[in-house]
Amino acid sequence: MIWCRFQSGQKISFGIVEGDVVTEVSGSPLDEHTVTATTHQLSQVRLLAPVIPGMLYAAGPNHRGHVEGMAARRGTPPSYPDRPSPNYRSVHAIIGSEENIVVPKDCSGAVQPEGQLAVVIGKKARKVSVDEALDYVFGYTIGNDISQRPWQQEDRTMFRSKNCDTWKPMGPWIVTGLDPTAFRIIVRHNGIVWEDFSSSEQIWSAAEWIHELSNYATLYPGDVIWMGTQGADGDMVPGDTIEVEISGIGTLKNYVVAEE
Amino acid sequence: MIWCRFQSGQKISFGIVEGDVVTEVSGSPLDEHTVTATTHQLSQVRLLAPVIPGMLYAAGPNHRGHVEGMAARRGTPPSYPDRPSPNYRSVHAIIGSEENIVVPKDCSGAVQPEGQLAVVIGKKARKVSVDEALDYVFGYTIGNDISQRPWQQEDRTMFRSKNCDTWKPMGPWIVTGLDPTAFRIIVRHNGIVWEDFSSSEQIWSAAEWIHELSNYATLYPGDVIWMGTQGADGDMVPGDTIEVEISGIGTLKNYVVAEE
Repeated sequence: MIWCRFQSGQKISFGIVEGDVVTEVSGSPLDEHTVTATTHQLSQVRLLAPVIPGMLYAAGPNHRGHVEGMAARRGTPPSYPDRPSPNYRSVHAIIGSEENIVVPKDCSGAVQPEGQLAVVIGKKARKVSVDEALDYVFGYTIGNDISQRPWQQEDRTMFRSKNCDTWKPMGPWIVTGLDPTAFRIIVRHNGIVWEDFSSSEQIWSAAEWIHELSNYATLYPGDVIWMGTQGADGDMVPGDTIEVEISGIGTLKNYVVAEE
Repeated sequence: MIWCRFQSGQKISFGIVEGDVVTEVSGSPLDEHTVTATTHQLSQVRLLAPVIPGMLYAAGPNHRGHVEGMAARRGTPPSYPDRPSPNYRSVHAIIGSEENIVVPKDCSGAVQPEGQLAVVIGKKARKVSVDEALDYVFGYTIGNDISQRPWQQEDRTMFRSKNCDTWKPMGPWIVTGLDPTAFRIIVRHNGIVWEDFSSSEQIWSAAEWIHELSNYATLYPGDVIWMGTQGADGDMVPGDTIEVEISGIGTLKNYVVAEE
């Protein structure tokens, strides 16, 4: 099933996507809700980020290729993480597909993409085993963890380098009932493939992350875990288009613009 | 004015505190609201954390004494931050005054307090100057940034060392109309003073933090900035009581218990 969040006129609703049609839902799929009789053409609505999480977790280095690519950028040997240790991202920086990524005036002028599988939690989870972890997943969507490498190297935290306004594109929608262990994830910069990798290459799987997080912190419906990227991609500058496609989910597409 | 959030029976509301009386408010002080005719004795309601922020920012090292104390713990020279660079804390870990801080079974058995001034944003803020920054503040409350130093030293991120369930006590309420530049902040462990410092000793002031954050990320009503602590306090173990008192605000009091 495909769940979206959309705007039609001034109204924001969740909806179910079937082909070219969105059926409006009253309430939230993560809580009580009713499927209404109202439908829209998909092309006539504005898709929004499919969920605004309570907490947005980022796995960070969760593919060996990313650890190696970032180390090469820094000119240091790769240092692989020894346990799943997430960071957080700003939920205020989330935008939907087809929205603009804004490059601040006072940075070097370029930002970098990180195409990621995004896991949406569906049920309150506390101390769940790896085996039962996926029962707590509502569905899967796509994230692009926009980064600014010079700031990432300079700053004590990832506030500026990862969390400027508009830097957390997520969408286009959430798909339920999928197997997270073998998604194909493709990052395209102006139509050229920059990354093509599989969720099977993760250092820790979605189930292992949910297990580890829930050992210490309750996960709530709507919380989202971004599962890390492969590689350490090049620069995006104003005028560029960036797409992240995941097999069985869809494509998250955003445009890079300069701050006015 | 003193704003609280409280539970009476099954109902959760915001309220205005005057002396021993809480007047119930319909809606949120950060949005549209109406003062009702319903009052409660303060002693008859359960105070909750006064706000659950969209984003909970932590200034981290913002007092020279904390930088020096943490360096001494590590046996390294102090390294002062060169710019305000916040981290995030989990909004799901927030608890109110008089609630229990739970020490997980698999840690060293002790946790550490960090008494902090908490700044509650009242208006959407984007690129605001230092001079106008305090116009965007709704009021001030108290935070205790519970930490687990061994995990903080071991782990790549502060997920486990700062954000376990119950580790972000905040309260007891929000006081408006105060000057944030000269609060006296006292941390008491089982009644003994562990820290006694002033917000005037911050490396960067509340106004400077709001300016810096809003240069990159829009601040929204209800967002909270924890302004850092002085010193690097000792161990709290189950059975202990920890209090953070700030002049003109009140006292945030919590109890340390072992995980069952």
